[in-house]
Amino acid sequence: MQNLDEHTITQEVLSRMTGTEDKRLHHVFSSLIQHLHDFAREVHLTEQEWEKGIEFLTSVGQTCSPVRQEFILLSDILGFSTLVTAQNHRKPQGCTEATVFGPFHVADAPAIEPWGNISPNMPGKPWFVSGTVRGLDGEVVPNAMLEVWQADEEGFYDVQKSDLEAAQGRGIIRADAQGYFNFQTIVPVAYPIPDDGPVGRVLRALDRHPWRPAHLHFMVHADGYQRLVTHIFKQGDEYLDSDAVFGVRSSLIEEWVMHDAGIAPDGSYSAQPFCTLNFDIVLNPSSAEVN
Amino acid sequence: MQNLDEHTITQEVLSRMTGTEDKRLHHVFSSLIQHLHDFAREVHLTEQEWEKGIEFLTSVGQTCSPVRQEFILLSDILGFSTLVTAQNHRKPQGCTEATVFGPFHVADAPAIEPWGNISPNMPGKPWFVSGTVRGLDGEVVPNAMLEVWQADEEGFYDVQKSDLEAAQGRGIIRADAQGYFNFQTIVPVAYPIPDDGPVGRVLRALDRHPWRPAHLHFMVHADGYQRLVTHIFKQGDEYLDSDAVFGVRSSLIEEWVMHDAGIAPDGSYSAQPFCTLNFDIVLNPSSAEVN
Repeated sequence: MQNLDEHTITQEVLSRMTGTEDKRLHHVFSSLIQHLHDFAREVHLTEQEWEKGIEFLTSVGQTCSPVRQEFILLSDILGFSTLVTAQNHRKPQGCTEATVFGPFHVADAPAIEPWGNISPNMPGKPWFVSGTVRGLDGEVVPNAMLEVWQADEEGFYDVQKSDLEAAQGRGIIRADAQGYFNFQTIVPVAYPIPDDGPVGRVLRALDRHPWRPAHLHFMVHADGYQRLVTHIFKQGDEYLDSDAVFGVRSSLIEEWVMHDAGIAPDGSYSAQPFCTLNFDIVLNPSSAEVN
Repeated sequence: MQNLDEHTITQEVLSRMTGTEDKRLHHVFSSLIQHLHDFAREVHLTEQEWEKGIEFLTSVGQTCSPVRQEFILLSDILGFSTLVTAQNHRKPQGCTEATVFGPFHVADAPAIEPWGNISPNMPGKPWFVSGTVRGLDGEVVPNAMLEVWQADEEGFYDVQKSDLEAAQGRGIIRADAQGYFNFQTIVPVAYPIPDDGPVGRVLRALDRHPWRPAHLHFMVHADGYQRLVTHIFKQGDEYLDSDAVFGVRSSLIEEWVMHDAGIAPDGSYSAQPFCTLNFDIVLNPSSAEVN
């Protein structure tokens, strides 16, 4: 085919891929190509804008590193991550809801003992987090594995800092046979997503702020239940209604309770005020219909 | 806004950017977000597919280098480049048509004297290229600047080779006061676009070949005329109807004439057979309505 114009090109691209063996891949690419082409026609994209787009995507890719995922950040601020999360986690009423994965998870977090501290060398208000993992009928889920990760009191994850020798603000917690889990950390604060790169430039161009409300990330694995990726947010945070990545769900907002100095939940004496959070995680059985 | 689902998210993302100062940017992003979201809903994109997409885009970005532009290549094989080129170059009948820019242009090509050789150290059949730059009414366009670039007889551009000390297969030609230009080079051949990276994986998954018909790239600048970016293709090439980047226009196909050994167009004696190409380039005045 020769002499393709902005109207005939779409059908030609689609007809070139009719031999695709993977039918799902064929379906996904067909829809993607149709929508990309429709977009370019709808706005009558200019060549200068196309060049800027190429430069932008290239800079997003080149900003990615083992400790920074700028494409996830881009997906997050465009609401794409929340869309995908939402349509893949229509859970039964009563389950803990899922929310966005975010760009800061890293594998190989350290294993943490009961009431162990995932942030042993970070300054901040002590925080004692505990809860029980349950199933949809209230049954205890024994021995779940919980990966947790969080920012520090300046709003940074450990992977954003170059001067740390060991993981901070992340750990792998094992719930006990009664589903009970606990650990110690520091209270995270609201923070701006990394806005010193191409995604930050987009936010500024669109007159948007980069802030996320304070939260704690969880990923929960348990035999017989669907994997859960979610956050717990802090009641009263000023960014709950304008999260830069659209991830807040009201069912995930909990009270983070402040206490005066005294006996902490782990039985130790805390000479400074401390914070506690206790909540149940309710998992969806693997056998349940997804979507 | 909290508790966004796959349907309510789109309106919320759009409503967050109502303060955008640049109205064109607002329009482009609004359409892009709507189409991206529609795509994800239409195919019910899964989280695993989203992860693969993030990994794919990251690898495309990280494959880019000063001498390789994998995002342009991706745009090319999806027909996006041809779409954008076509809708921005609805030229009056009689003008030389535009086609895709491609990923292999680099700035600072060497200046070439009349009948100078842009490929002095490359093996291949000698090729003598000449022509005249004109305007739409047949008038001569004096002193145009032509950037030309091409692959070698193995199908590689110089930027794809690490062992070259100087530019090869690219040059800047100055047409004379009568619009006449000429240079010497070698005959390029059909070649596969670089398919050892993420874009090559897409082509294979979609059961598509990576071949482009043989061509010579031109970018022509002349005062008072619109910039022209195009190719000249070779009559009879086997890939004219299945160009991997959808760039062939029948008006850009010319006869590349083979000659026995003898006197070449530059007046020299060629002891080996040689090839000639002569064609006019017709530019669109800057004052003409674009689109």
